[in-house]
Amino acid sequence: MILPKGFFVSGINCGIKRKNLDLGLIVAEDLCRGQGVFTLCKNISYSVTLCKKNIKNPIKALLVNSGNANCFSHKSGLADTGKIIESLAKALGVSSKNILIVSTGIIGKKLPKDKIISNLPKLIKKLGKNTSGFAASLLTTDTFSKVSSAKLSSGGSIIGFAKGAGMIAPNMATMLGFILTDCKLDSPTLGKVFKEAVSKSFNSISVDGCMSTNDTVVILSSNKVLLKSKKVKIEFSKALENVSLSLAKMIVKDGEGATKFVEIVIKGAKSIQEAKKGAMALANSNLFKCAIYGESTNWGRIISALGQAGIKVGENISIEATPLKKEEISITVDLKQGKAGWRAYTCDLTPEYVKINAEYS
Amino acid sequence: MILPKGFFVSGINCGIKRKNLDLGLIVAEDLCRGQGVFTLCKNISYSVTLCKKNIKNPIKALLVNSGNANCFSHKSGLADTGKIIESLAKALGVSSKNILIVSTGIIGKKLPKDKIISNLPKLIKKLGKNTSGFAASLLTTDTFSKVSSAKLSSGGSIIGFAKGAGMIAPNMATMLGFILTDCKLDSPTLGKVFKEAVSKSFNSISVDGCMSTNDTVVILSSNKVLLKSKKVKIEFSKALENVSLSLAKMIVKDGEGATKFVEIVIKGAKSIQEAKKGAMALANSNLFKCAIYGESTNWGRIISALGQAGIKVGENISIEATPLKKEEISITVDLKQGKAGWRAYTCDLTPEYVKINAEYS
Repeated sequence: MILPKGFFVSGINCGIKRKNLDLGLIVAEDLCRGQGVFTLCKNISYSVTLCKKNIKNPIKALLVNSGNANCFSHKSGLADTGKIIESLAKALGVSSKNILIVSTGIIGKKLPKDKIISNLPKLIKKLGKNTSGFAASLLTTDTFSKVSSAKLSSGGSIIGFAKGAGMIAPNMATMLGFILTDCKLDSPTLGKVFKEAVSKSFNSISVDGCMSTNDTVVILSSNKVLLKSKKVKIEFSKALENVSLSLAKMIVKDGEGATKFVEIVIKGAKSIQEAKKGAMALANSNLFKCAIYGESTNWGRIISALGQAGIKVGENISIEATPLKKEEISITVDLKQGKAGWRAYTCDLTPEYVKINAEYS
Repeated sequence: MILPKGFFVSGINCGIKRKNLDLGLIVAEDLCRGQGVFTLCKNISYSVTLCKKNIKNPIKALLVNSGNANCFSHKSGLADTGKIIESLAKALGVSSKNILIVSTGIIGKKLPKDKIISNLPKLIKKLGKNTSGFAASLLTTDTFSKVSSAKLSSGGSIIGFAKGAGMIAPNMATMLGFILTDCKLDSPTLGKVFKEAVSKSFNSISVDGCMSTNDTVVILSSNKVLLKSKKVKIEFSKALENVSLSLAKMIVKDGEGATKFVEIVIKGAKSIQEAKKGAMALANSNLFKCAIYGESTNWGRIISALGQAGIKVGENISIEATPLKKEEISITVDLKQGKAGWRAYTCDLTPEYVKINAEYS
């Protein structure tokens, strides 16, 4: 996996976690433009607060820590976060307005600001084109790094990094995603294409229906490769969608305690909104997901979950599934009420999920 | 537990289940008045469809079966249900308009209409004042019968029967509740008092956030005991609330796989609506409920669940809990934003819950 032109990354352990990497950095050669999609949760981390503010500015770097959500920990949490950003900005010779910060981990514990600040020189020194350290620095309960990339015929490229693995719900919930590209599109077009890709990928997955204080997906473009023709722009949109969807699927496959990956296809819906609502209702139904774990064709649970989401179905509804014994399952529900459809992705709910989340603190 | 004046009940096995009781009957001496609260799920059973229609009429009897939800099974499901009602009406010498029918169990399996109809004489013959058979006939995955009663100083009485035990969610989800009283109140007053009692009890509990096709709570009054004074009317309201709440708590305690009963108290909210929304958000959060199972004070999950429900909290929020090692836990969240409060009840989410629901079909 090769980084797009104009970006360097690194990852180290700074002492938030005992041994694993916990601090990552993306630095752009020149100031670049970014777009972000953030949690809809009303209670957000100090990092998200600052990230939402700074994403509007030209961006020089993105700092990410795992192991601590930097949220609801103490009164000077926001000021502390500001100091981390300031230190990094100073080291990189830019304003703190040009820095993004992202955090993931436990809520309510004070982020060790001094450990982070004193490790910034080491982190900057490690910057390079190797992506593995950065990819590892994002992880919490994830069991593997999530990276996906695409090359375009124009010579441009896209790379995406993500972390899961619980609290993955509609509207992102504790997932982080960072997408880097050297392709140059005007800001409104990039914004539109990015939001559509996020909607079909990161916002169409669920592990447990729980939304977090920290979800962030950011795209940064170094603008090194100009996309001239309409054809290449379409190629870019598709590639961005593929990278996003591939990361989203990795998150679901690595869902806490998951033994099965489930694709839910709703078709024949009256509108895309209704199709998405129905798909996400199944992706979030504990009972449906227990049935999948048990390899049980308890389709009544599909009927009730759809009804709970406000979708009245007729007796002509058709439900088809690939064999439930397999590790990857696709379930198609044809509502036979219209022409709209949506795909969502989830995993089964397992005793292991409960154990992981009973012990996590 | 003694039945209020003017009612008789019975319960038998009619062959829907192999051995356990699966068919119950309540018969009123005279036609009586009833009120009902039903699931908000858009896809409902044939029984709920007919029950919602007939509850407006004078009621002679209520027939309940367990083991089969009588829902989405075949095209003549509604007609079959009509035939069952007709047979019972004929046997009791009333119109089928005066009969209520309620079902619980698996969705999508054809209800064995003939088994039920041929067993109606046996069921009618068994009618009496003993409540244990009727209470047992409601159960599905419940591990114990749920009955609660109250005596009033006026001489009147109330008795309530309920079943749980999974799919217990906001707005009732696969729970059935039947409340019988001999106290006479005018219909609008009874309706108001009943709805308030349901709101504070059956609609303030959650086991897994899943809503069903079959939830029904019905109150029937034989009007044998006139409530004269305002004082006795208030006594009745309180007793009805106590009976309802006591049944609701039993349902949560018998939640599938539950090891802990959790009372959630939200106070200091801006409005009752917000307090209820916050309490139910916690009652429905998988992560919060896994933390309870693990006896872990992961209060960050309270912050994110409240935020997901749209409630922004300040850093002055206070969270207090009784010892998590106990089987009964009370958690008080003071939002410090206003004067409104609400209580909700839930259980922990356990590996056993997943196992039960993976195997149930």
